[in-house]
Amino acid sequence: MSGLIRSFVATANSAGTQFPLNNLPCGVFSDEKPPRCGMAIGDSILDVEALEAWGFLQFGGTLQTSDWTAFMALGPEAWSRLRRDVTALLAEGRENQDEVRPFLCPQEGAVLHMPFRVAEYTDFYASRHHATNVGTMFRGAENALPPNWMHMPIGYNGRASSVVISGTDVRRPWGQVKGPDESAPRFAPSARFDIELELGAVVGLASDHPLSVAEADAAIFGYVLLNDWSARDIQAWEYQPLGPFQAKATATSISPWIVMSGALAPFRCDTPARGVPLPDHLRDAGPMLFDIDLEVSLAPQGKAGTVITRTNYSEMYYSAAQQLAHHTTCGCPMRTGDLLGSGTISGPQKENRGSLLELSWGGKEPLTLDTGEPRSFIEDGDRLTLRGAATGDGYCVGFGSCTGRVLPAVKDPYARNET
Amino acid sequence: MSGLIRSFVATANSAGTQFPLNNLPCGVFSDEKPPRCGMAIGDSILDVEALEAWGFLQFGGTLQTSDWTAFMALGPEAWSRLRRDVTALLAEGRENQDEVRPFLCPQEGAVLHMPFRVAEYTDFYASRHHATNVGTMFRGAENALPPNWMHMPIGYNGRASSVVISGTDVRRPWGQVKGPDESAPRFAPSARFDIELELGAVVGLASDHPLSVAEADAAIFGYVLLNDWSARDIQAWEYQPLGPFQAKATATSISPWIVMSGALAPFRCDTPARGVPLPDHLRDAGPMLFDIDLEVSLAPQGKAGTVITRTNYSEMYYSAAQQLAHHTTCGCPMRTGDLLGSGTISGPQKENRGSLLELSWGGKEPLTLDTGEPRSFIEDGDRLTLRGAATGDGYCVGFGSCTGRVLPAVKDPYARNET
Repeated sequence: MSGLIRSFVATANSAGTQFPLNNLPCGVFSDEKPPRCGMAIGDSILDVEALEAWGFLQFGGTLQTSDWTAFMALGPEAWSRLRRDVTALLAEGRENQDEVRPFLCPQEGAVLHMPFRVAEYTDFYASRHHATNVGTMFRGAENALPPNWMHMPIGYNGRASSVVISGTDVRRPWGQVKGPDESAPRFAPSARFDIELELGAVVGLASDHPLSVAEADAAIFGYVLLNDWSARDIQAWEYQPLGPFQAKATATSISPWIVMSGALAPFRCDTPARGVPLPDHLRDAGPMLFDIDLEVSLAPQGKAGTVITRTNYSEMYYSAAQQLAHHTTCGCPMRTGDLLGSGTISGPQKENRGSLLELSWGGKEPLTLDTGEPRSFIEDGDRLTLRGAATGDGYCVGFGSCTGRVLPAVKDPYARNET
Repeated sequence: MSGLIRSFVATANSAGTQFPLNNLPCGVFSDEKPPRCGMAIGDSILDVEALEAWGFLQFGGTLQTSDWTAFMALGPEAWSRLRRDVTALLAEGRENQDEVRPFLCPQEGAVLHMPFRVAEYTDFYASRHHATNVGTMFRGAENALPPNWMHMPIGYNGRASSVVISGTDVRRPWGQVKGPDESAPRFAPSARFDIELELGAVVGLASDHPLSVAEADAAIFGYVLLNDWSARDIQAWEYQPLGPFQAKATATSISPWIVMSGALAPFRCDTPARGVPLPDHLRDAGPMLFDIDLEVSLAPQGKAGTVITRTNYSEMYYSAAQQLAHHTTCGCPMRTGDLLGSGTISGPQKENRGSLLELSWGGKEPLTLDTGEPRSFIEDGDRLTLRGAATGDGYCVGFGSCTGRVLPAVKDPYARNET
């Protein structure tokens, strides 16, 4: 594992930064100028749109299209070249640093926007600890893992229109719910609104045929933090027989920075040992998980946050490459901008669980926050924040944060004048 | 119910046509000129892109954007005005017919393309006969209808990238399957490839809040025939616990013509009587189903077709308006171009069933085609064709057809040079 790549941007070399030259994540930012493509470096954002406009970068104009979608479609060679070119532009020893400095904008005060257009959104269920926990609660310990679970990454199609950028407030949803002791369903605000701590894989390269695991890995442009907000009471009543629908369509938040696969290469690691062998077309083609530390904090309105869980992406049973390969087995066309949620990432211990459903064991064992307040599920005004970073030798590659505050449900979803 | 609206386009007045002036469905066609918006009239297509370019129609340039998406976003007033304006342009008694005739192109020889950009695709499960049949086969008669089924229209998100225009060949998919008597799953071509006879509702008006049933009805631009190709063996193994995924992502075919809601107004009818009352927010707000006769024919390669089922859209338990209203309960944003499959439309009798799964009762009671051949599921080379039309007093409003031929599976999905 190589060490820190030093930059003439001094803050990119400081011990605490998530954005050293090793990282160079892709985002869309605006300040006095409109939204455009940029890469985080230290406490700054490099304006790559302007760099291409001035001829310092050359990617066929794709960096000048107000988000990363067109560039993502260029494929792995362009992705690697961009990282090389920008590393050279910002390297510590570079001559003529003054010709690059005008393209550095302060992160402070910049507004971050959706970094790409989400084509379609798929969510998986691919952490063994999570699937075991949820299966035990929903179907009992003896039926916790469905019979197919060890043979392929189970997933379902989500709703791309509900994917929002970190910082967006999330309104508590209404939905149809029915408790086990109720004789009929009710239409009411969700009382068991929850998070799912996930990593999202962003598909760069489109395809129209089944992909091998190696091909799938190469088609992934990068990764984002992802919080799949979930209404557990709506989910419990609706999910049989065709899966989650309205329980998962209020919002899914992603981090503003896409960390490119190339930046994560030093942190690759293997999926866990398997008692049940996978079919050939889903077998690992090398280490395709990543050693990324993840955590979630919960801050009640106006109060400090409590870290409620810590886990690691390496806890997954299936990699994003295996998920994407499975996604294409039937010939399903994939498009630039498809977003694949890893599924909730839970670790082996209670304190490693990636959802409040698991952390409070369905509400039966509420957490106690550092403020002394109990929590089973999200309360109005709570801010939930995901963080993630991979740590190398003397540097770290971070995702920034993925945050959202939950607003109270509207009083009447059909009153058109309510604010 | 009003009668035929006569046009100076003589073939639009003939007894057999599906495209009288009452209909005016929206499609995208190309001939010697590139793809553009048109409306079917008799044996012709009215080039509305050119009509707007020449000032005969005025919709802010939306008809000149190579498909109907931008026009659909204008909303119900524009949709009605277009129907009025074109009805006046083509009316039998119109003066200066010669100034309109140059905009009529022959249907014969024209190539039809996707009429709109599918934003996202949702498929429902909302025919009671179908849900009862499938539930009986998959879960037994006593658990046929899930407990939630009578309380809301059950649906799941499908894969928009797999929606194709009628006429597109469909390649038999590979997938993971496991028969009840097999000890382990296999990766193999689907042996139980099937159709689903559906109507698709095309959302015109975007929204970002829960819609009432009346608002949802008003947001629907029109309807298409829809065949949701389904691999039953892949589905049976994968669908628990999160719903269909690869079984439904090979292809979904739609008719090239969108019949606008306005053209179907004379054929509105009520949903069936309900023993279990619906919650207020899902109750009918008027007659929101349509009396549309539907049929499917199956033609083995090089042979004549057999009509294998006849049913009617009025057999649905939930209307598209109710489905769309339910879709938005949690605040799920809807976008122009969202496509909502009705779910398989089965009627009460065996000959009214909308899938081969039901017609052959899971393969146990094969059909006999007019050619004498048996069929349980689709065989390679079979062409499946959906047709649909609503019949008024002296005229009919038709969807044309939605057809596709099934090609044999590739020998190796991962061999890149196989044709």
